[in-house]
Amino acid sequence: MYVILVYDMEQKRVGKMLKLCRKYLNWIQNSVFEGEITEVKLKELLALAGGIMDKQKDSIILFKSRQEKWLDKQVIGREKNELDNLI
Amino acid sequence: MYVILVYDMEQKRVGKMLKLCRKYLNWIQNSVFEGEITEVKLKELLALAGGIMDKQKDSIILFKSRQEKWLDKQVIGREKNELDNLI
Repeated sequence: MYVILVYDMEQKRVGKMLKLCRKYLNWIQNSVFEGEITEVKLKELLALAGGIMDKQKDSIILFKSRQEKWLDKQVIGREKNELDNLI
Repeated sequence: MYVILVYDMEQKRVGKMLKLCRKYLNWIQNSVFEGEITEVKLKELLALAGGIMDKQKDSIILFKSRQEKWLDKQVIGREKNELDNLI
């Protein structure tokens, strides 16, 4: 399954969430990740994410598609987060 | 065409971009929008966005799909940006 994950977190929890998501998906922008993932691994990711986030304040939006080819991705502006290699 | 748009902007330009994107798409999270849009309207949106953003620093990622049904959306945590009705 191909997913796009976007989180909106309070600053103090961003670091942990970023680190977690990068273990499972590819980081493509500030708070945006994408990649192929199995249902089992996605459940694992969401369970761990649930432990980090404050569900009254933070949110995660997931878009799931059975196949990546159904989506066409386009990046305008800065291509890649320069922090990518630093963390 | 169904699109998901995510922007990553410097704070000082966020307000303008938010206002612009809300004219064309539905705001679903901090910097995330989705909706049906025609090619013509999308071009218009991107041209106007290009005038707001600093392409060395900011970025927009677009995911396009011919049909929304190919995507399954899931929200975890806070459902809707509470600012939605204020702006």
